[in-house]
Amino acid sequence: MKNYESLIKYFEDQLTKIACNGEPTELYSPIKYTLSFGGKRIRPVTTLMGCELFCGDYEKALPQAIAIELFHNFTLIHDDIMDNAPIRRGQETVFKKWNPNIAILSGDTLFAMAYQYAQQADKEILKDTLSVFNQTAIEVCEGQQFDLNYESSNDVSVDDYIKMIRLKTGVLFGASLKIGALVGGASNEEANLLYDFGVNIGLGFQLKDDLLDTFGNEGIFGKKTGGDIVTNKKTFLYIKALETADDEGREELLSLYNTVDTEPDYKIEATKKLFLKYKVDMAANEEIDKYFKVGMECLDMIKLSDENKQQLREVAVKMIDRNK
Amino acid sequence: MKNYESLIKYFEDQLTKIACNGEPTELYSPIKYTLSFGGKRIRPVTTLMGCELFCGDYEKALPQAIAIELFHNFTLIHDDIMDNAPIRRGQETVFKKWNPNIAILSGDTLFAMAYQYAQQADKEILKDTLSVFNQTAIEVCEGQQFDLNYESSNDVSVDDYIKMIRLKTGVLFGASLKIGALVGGASNEEANLLYDFGVNIGLGFQLKDDLLDTFGNEGIFGKKTGGDIVTNKKTFLYIKALETADDEGREELLSLYNTVDTEPDYKIEATKKLFLKYKVDMAANEEIDKYFKVGMECLDMIKLSDENKQQLREVAVKMIDRNK
Repeated sequence: MKNYESLIKYFEDQLTKIACNGEPTELYSPIKYTLSFGGKRIRPVTTLMGCELFCGDYEKALPQAIAIELFHNFTLIHDDIMDNAPIRRGQETVFKKWNPNIAILSGDTLFAMAYQYAQQADKEILKDTLSVFNQTAIEVCEGQQFDLNYESSNDVSVDDYIKMIRLKTGVLFGASLKIGALVGGASNEEANLLYDFGVNIGLGFQLKDDLLDTFGNEGIFGKKTGGDIVTNKKTFLYIKALETADDEGREELLSLYNTVDTEPDYKIEATKKLFLKYKVDMAANEEIDKYFKVGMECLDMIKLSDENKQQLREVAVKMIDRNK
Repeated sequence: MKNYESLIKYFEDQLTKIACNGEPTELYSPIKYTLSFGGKRIRPVTTLMGCELFCGDYEKALPQAIAIELFHNFTLIHDDIMDNAPIRRGQETVFKKWNPNIAILSGDTLFAMAYQYAQQADKEILKDTLSVFNQTAIEVCEGQQFDLNYESSNDVSVDDYIKMIRLKTGVLFGASLKIGALVGGASNEEANLLYDFGVNIGLGFQLKDDLLDTFGNEGIFGKKTGGDIVTNKKTFLYIKALETADDEGREELLSLYNTVDTEPDYKIEATKKLFLKYKVDMAANEEIDKYFKVGMECLDMIKLSDENKQQLREVAVKMIDRNK
């Protein structure tokens, strides 16, 4: 089995071969720019792994891995417009570097390009893999809309939040693995177990993101912590704190998030203090452990040798047990 | 053969059955709203006709007809954001009624929903129909980007313009017919002839749009003419006039389009006068006739009885020889 790093390298090499030299250049330059950002490439690599797990050949799922990565990048381009985010992976976002219209349209094009790759499967499994792809695409949009709704709502529960990140982040991890598995010849049952593994690890991954953004070690994390707090993002930590705090704590937290022009460093420190007081960092870690465990149980249930599943286990650990 | 009106009615009935009641409602209400607008439904009806032409059964291509209509509506929602258009078919556009973020996201969802229908084909032809669908989706985006580019360019030729409307409008008419034909069992050669028929009639259709927007009879056209002139749209008429006019006429036209705050009625009248002076209305009609003729020749080359092809002939006439 190829290890994680060689799979990333293989995938990166293949991704650079995608033709982005079409016309008009205003449409294809942002696509080329976005794909060159790098990023962790976890999703497409798990597609390759999911395929290799069942047929021993990761290359067979390359078109689907590319489809997943193009789709993911399409959502990033559109999300950045909606979130008015100027920077992504240390670079200017497409809508900032060009303009919102170009970002809408190059995103749309990437989405269609994703389908050009998604359809490159044997006809026996084409419909099944496309069904997963379509369903996931719709759910990711639903998740993003819930996320937008929650921005202006003061009534978001932890359950609402988990539902949202399941749609926005979890299902794409699940789909990446499931599609790879189907290409590799997995049964529906096996592919679904891998899907559930992916969704749960994806949930843990997102919760870890929330945790690192606030409590990460800046030296290792590679960027300033507290960004979510400064932008009033309703993360697991914030929602859980509101649910856990007494009246006084709740009022203090609401006031910190509702007061404009608070000095950022003060706001971050005061909010972190409340988070720690109500132990929501511990609650987040417990939640992450819970999803990690459920995910691993799904992987365990797949009737393949432990040796073959080891690589996916390591990816799951990498996604959850990280400092950046 | 079912006639055009009964096919529209059949299609409208089926379209209302599409589930738009999912959550979040902020995502699905705009979709329901957009689909309820009506519109001519020419594209999906030609998909049904293209299928019936080869197998005698239009219902077989219903999923593809729905896919085409959902895709078309997705492009309208996104185009309206980019064009900052407040009104479409007499109703507020999605981004005006809701907001740009919701318009981006409900458009994305519609696009994914389109694929849910597009994939409902027999596995023998699934890949071929999806290839047409994907390629067309990408080309429509390219066309829209060229259109956006041309807004700020003073150097657009008639050839550039035709290339743009071929991508933005023509290819989707071609694809609607070709996909229907493939579902109906047409050979690649026959399907491609129907594609070329569609593209050429689509070009004629768009040029007729340009003509009616400026020279339509307001009573029949149903809205005020001159909208393209007021918004400085670089239509065939404008570009052809710039190419045809002498220096004086060119300067006058450029000045009309480059002066802000000109009184709209004056601007419309003065521009129309120039268009008539340089006979660009006649040039447009000649161009329309040319594409109509080429389209009809493609239809003629398909080896089926004239009786069977009669309905498509009538649609082509309806698209070109219209007053609104």
